[in-house]
Amino acid sequence: MNQKIAILCSGGDVSGMNPALKRFVEYAYARNLQPYFVRNGYEGLIDNHIVPADYHDVAGIITRGGTKIGSARSLRFKEASYRAVAAENLRSHGIDRLIVLGGDGSFRGMERFYHETGIAFCGIPSTIDNDINGTDYCLGVDTALGVIKDAIDQIRDTASSFHRAFVIETMGRDCGYLTLISAITSGAELCLIPELPVDIDDFKGCFQSQIAKGRDYFIAVVSEALDSKKVAEWFEKELGFESRVSVLGHIQRGGNPSVYDRLMAFKFVTYAIDALLEGKNHSIICYNKSHFNFKTIDEVALHPYRLDEELLNLAREQFLPTRCQM
Amino acid sequence: MNQKIAILCSGGDVSGMNPALKRFVEYAYARNLQPYFVRNGYEGLIDNHIVPADYHDVAGIITRGGTKIGSARSLRFKEASYRAVAAENLRSHGIDRLIVLGGDGSFRGMERFYHETGIAFCGIPSTIDNDINGTDYCLGVDTALGVIKDAIDQIRDTASSFHRAFVIETMGRDCGYLTLISAITSGAELCLIPELPVDIDDFKGCFQSQIAKGRDYFIAVVSEALDSKKVAEWFEKELGFESRVSVLGHIQRGGNPSVYDRLMAFKFVTYAIDALLEGKNHSIICYNKSHFNFKTIDEVALHPYRLDEELLNLAREQFLPTRCQM
Amino acid sequence: MNQKIAILCSGGDVSGMNPALKRFVEYAYARNLQPYFVRNGYEGLIDNHIVPADYHDVAGIITRGGTKIGSARSLRFKEASYRAVAAENLRSHGIDRLIVLGGDGSFRGMERFYHETGIAFCGIPSTIDNDINGTDYCLGVDTALGVIKDAIDQIRDTASSFHRAFVIETMGRDCGYLTLISAITSGAELCLIPELPVDIDDFKGCFQSQIAKGRDYFIAVVSEALDSKKVAEWFEKELGFESRVSVLGHIQRGGNPSVYDRLMAFKFVTYAIDALLEGKNHSIICYNKSHFNFKTIDEVALHPYRLDEELLNLAREQFLPTRCQM
Amino acid sequence: MNQKIAILCSGGDVSGMNPALKRFVEYAYARNLQPYFVRNGYEGLIDNHIVPADYHDVAGIITRGGTKIGSARSLRFKEASYRAVAAENLRSHGIDRLIVLGGDGSFRGMERFYHETGIAFCGIPSTIDNDINGTDYCLGVDTALGVIKDAIDQIRDTASSFHRAFVIETMGRDCGYLTLISAITSGAELCLIPELPVDIDDFKGCFQSQIAKGRDYFIAVVSEALDSKKVAEWFEKELGFESRVSVLGHIQRGGNPSVYDRLMAFKFVTYAIDALLEGKNHSIICYNKSHFNFKTIDEVALHPYRLDEELLNLAREQFLPTRCQM
Repeated sequence: MNQKIAILCSGGDVSGMNPALKRFVEYAYARNLQPYFVRNGYEGLIDNHIVPADYHDVAGIITRGGTKIGSARSLRFKEASYRAVAAENLRSHGIDRLIVLGGDGSFRGMERFYHETGIAFCGIPSTIDNDINGTDYCLGVDTALGVIKDAIDQIRDTASSFHRAFVIETMGRDCGYLTLISAITSGAELCLIPELPVDIDDFKGCFQSQIAKGRDYFIAVVSEALDSKKVAEWFEKELGFESRVSVLGHIQRGGNPSVYDRLMAFKFVTYAIDALLEGKNHSIICYNKSHFNFKTIDEVALHPYRLDEELLNLAREQFLPTRCQM
Repeated sequence: MNQKIAILCSGGDVSGMNPALKRFVEYAYARNLQPYFVRNGYEGLIDNHIVPADYHDVAGIITRGGTKIGSARSLRFKEASYRAVAAENLRSHGIDRLIVLGGDGSFRGMERFYHETGIAFCGIPSTIDNDINGTDYCLGVDTALGVIKDAIDQIRDTASSFHRAFVIETMGRDCGYLTLISAITSGAELCLIPELPVDIDDFKGCFQSQIAKGRDYFIAVVSEALDSKKVAEWFEKELGFESRVSVLGHIQRGGNPSVYDRLMAFKFVTYAIDALLEGKNHSIICYNKSHFNFKTIDEVALHPYRLDEELLNLAREQFLPTRCQM
Repeated sequence: MNQKIAILCSGGDVSGMNPALKRFVEYAYARNLQPYFVRNGYEGLIDNHIVPADYHDVAGIITRGGTKIGSARSLRFKEASYRAVAAENLRSHGIDRLIVLGGDGSFRGMERFYHETGIAFCGIPSTIDNDINGTDYCLGVDTALGVIKDAIDQIRDTASSFHRAFVIETMGRDCGYLTLISAITSGAELCLIPELPVDIDDFKGCFQSQIAKGRDYFIAVVSEALDSKKVAEWFEKELGFESRVSVLGHIQRGGNPSVYDRLMAFKFVTYAIDALLEGKNHSIICYNKSHFNFKTIDEVALHPYRLDEELLNLAREQFLPTRCQM
Repeated sequence: MNQKIAILCSGGDVSGMNPALKRFVEYAYARNLQPYFVRNGYEGLIDNHIVPADYHDVAGIITRGGTKIGSARSLRFKEASYRAVAAENLRSHGIDRLIVLGGDGSFRGMERFYHETGIAFCGIPSTIDNDINGTDYCLGVDTALGVIKDAIDQIRDTASSFHRAFVIETMGRDCGYLTLISAITSGAELCLIPELPVDIDDFKGCFQSQIAKGRDYFIAVVSEALDSKKVAEWFEKELGFESRVSVLGHIQRGGNPSVYDRLMAFKFVTYAIDALLEGKNHSIICYNKSHFNFKTIDEVALHPYRLDEELLNLAREQFLPTRCQM
């Protein structure tokens, strides 16, 4: 009789989860495993929303953002009694391996579950914030960046027509990755992230000089951890520039998965299944310097995420007030 | 010697202005007129930012949102003394005809200008709000609707993955056109516009019934004239649904002009130039029932815009609480 | 007991069929009808692939091109014996009304079916070619035009970088509508359609003059009914311009339905169902001058489609050799 | 007096060149260099189309495919006499450093030029084919993959509606990279590339079995080096499936540069300028395992490009007839 394997999505959804589900079903069959879907993350484990999956379930989903099987945060899974129920449910289906798409919090819960129950898992880092320590890439980041790029390209149209300063607030929680890459790749004049504290007043002279030479709009990209409204007010007060805040919000989570996210989903899932079959029982698959490897939860979650130094150097060179080009 | 004609953009920019500029230059030459650009609306008239335009100036702009020549609102143009300066500037270039892309406020100012100076104009209704009385279509609406559609499609991805209610606030000022069309074409569950007052509590029973049958997310599209935050709170309190507000904001103004806006820009400008050459000296070109015609400012601006009755009927049939399908 | 109504797609698929299916299910329920899907056009009628449809079947399909229920051409339906089988199948489900998305050939078959069986139908013109006489608009056209626009925008990038002539072949069979609108809205230098015969050599002098003044690429948009290869050779031989043919092909059929096609699908289906309920038993719903009306098959199919005169005038004014601007 | 540096594009244009030009101008100024543009590749060197570049020249180009300064192939540059003219032109402007965006052929020419003239260069691998040995990534690849993905997503809509086999021919010359990644990320059923020779007849049994189980369309992605027409005929003859060939053609070269290409352009140019200032006089900047490094022309061009082994393994596992899932 076939061995069984299940997949679930935990925490915030990202674009790339659906391609991962498709690959999961196909590769499970290729490796002679019966694939299962768990609906709505750990909630589905507890409530026994666990169903066999077929090719038919994943037809056409590669083009869609979000996740077909739902995602959720689960308070109940933090309690041992509910985890026992979850284990019981999995055993009743004969499932002893799980792929978990989520963040480090989700993996931490899974690690505890593994030690309590022996049910193996492999975690696939999935968050548009790209703020998981130990991996260079988290599923969903590239699609989110593409959505942000499109939005800023559109806002630039109107900014440049109307001589305004636009302050664009991007997601990322405490991590400036999305903000910084978006600022670089959209040619923003100003980028404010927690990792690169600046005194905005230090830009005043440079921006005034740019205005004197003909600059008639500004694009500022600002992390949601900072105060975008204050930045807009600064443009109004200090530079006399009509300004607007644009909070990109939840469009950043969705969208047709990019080629890169589809490819990463394909590889993450392939190697995660391989790892489980090879006996790696509780690991996170990480991507470092174009290479996949497997880390323990402590390697991933003990330390907070930090922007890589190369990127920070580019940020410093481009977005510190001292580098502002007159 | 060639006669001369100028174009300017006034008020909020829209996607479709650049295709209009391209057509303006080409068709002016085709009709043996020397085309001129006026920068930044009426401000440019006053400040004499009026320059001859060439094919070269419009190469490649057909794909870009916003307007290459800038747009602006002008307080000064409301004063007779500044209008006199503007007229003097135009005469110094030998320009006695103007195409104005803008809204009814802009046309009203131009009408006064015409009576004072004899300088002829033709107004092309241009606003994403589609709230100009007397024309079925305003330049920029279709592109804005496309941007909103893409945004809601993306938000739906995440809403359906995460079992949330999303309240999406769209532009349109007091006019529900953008909101209503967006709600219909994105398959929203709820649409709130000023023209169709409802008591949101009347949806409660129907939505509860839908939830009981398995509905696990809601998309509500709400006019900026209404209180989207309150709607989100209603979903939380009354239905126990986690909810988020997404204010689409200025992305709605931008974007690569749609085929429809490019085509309408082409036609609006062609017929506007024809009209000026035929001696229509102060008119607004309107589009009604697939037909272009020319109206006076009073026909356009005396009455406020009203949603057409066919659309309102569809709205009533689809989005009144009594029509909510359980 | 509820009355029943079915929908099917016949002939080439278009983007907009899925939004039509969604509206069909919702509005059928709103009108107290039980909706059915027929798979793969008339083939499904004959093979009794007729199934009740539910909200669940149309969730999320509004964003997808093509048609969820399949489309097909059917040779068998031309034979009376198979039509008798089809009628028997429909009666066995208690269905006596049909919505047919297709072209005039499909409607002609349906008309015969109606007279033989009394089963009522309403046809919704659906073809990207926009070549159905009697209606200004066919479902799918706007999305197809958007796909073509995006493709030409992309090709222009490389054409202008590399100093080439690009000859872009578009769909439309004998009808130049897609080609002409695409040429106008993409700012093409040359447009060749069956409705506007020209001698391409008459452009030579004008194009040479443009090249002398600095023009370094050409975009030509050519109907599939004409010989795009020959046009490319002409650029090579007569103008010494390296040239390429790009046959856009089947990408033109697909893509996320545009706002306009979603809205037209919504209206077409709503009014088609209304018409059937009001006793219009064998009609085609047409759209003329922003107004929906119902025509007989003879009004629609007796005469071949002709480009409307306004459009032809724009074409003549823009794309005749005598109008070429040096 | 400032030192001077020039940039040119050689060979096929790619999306990402414009962001590279923008970064080139900005970073040259940041490093206190006067930037120059050379138009139309080596042709512009020979014809002295070499002009100083300013911020103004690169405003807004980050969103556009192709290259603003033109690209070209140059036969003349293969002759020593013309190279001498090119050197003379550069010296007349005081330029002794060049950034070259192009392929290995272009770099080979530049290497000869360097040895003859001492004019330093740094080559940035730029080709959508991704077929340059020595670097994991060439500028333009990600945008091209995105365009292909969108096209295949659209074709899938119609394929699945109409029960057809679509054979999609992608660029890449002899290199299967574009084809393979596109096949993986679009969920194709068949992928044919030069690097993975198969006997297509070996798929027959598997595909027949899939059809028997309900599969009603096929997507095959095929390298331009192979015979896509023959593949389509095979589907018709052997499987009785109506089939179509779609040659994607030059749309693959264009399009709004992706985030990844914008970022890579930013980094490539930054580090290339750094390298020239540090005295690396004739090198190619390569990207390997997330790390930038500099190689000689022989390291890059002596050996033909080969698909990396990890990718080939995925290809074998997914697209060999023996892996076909029934």
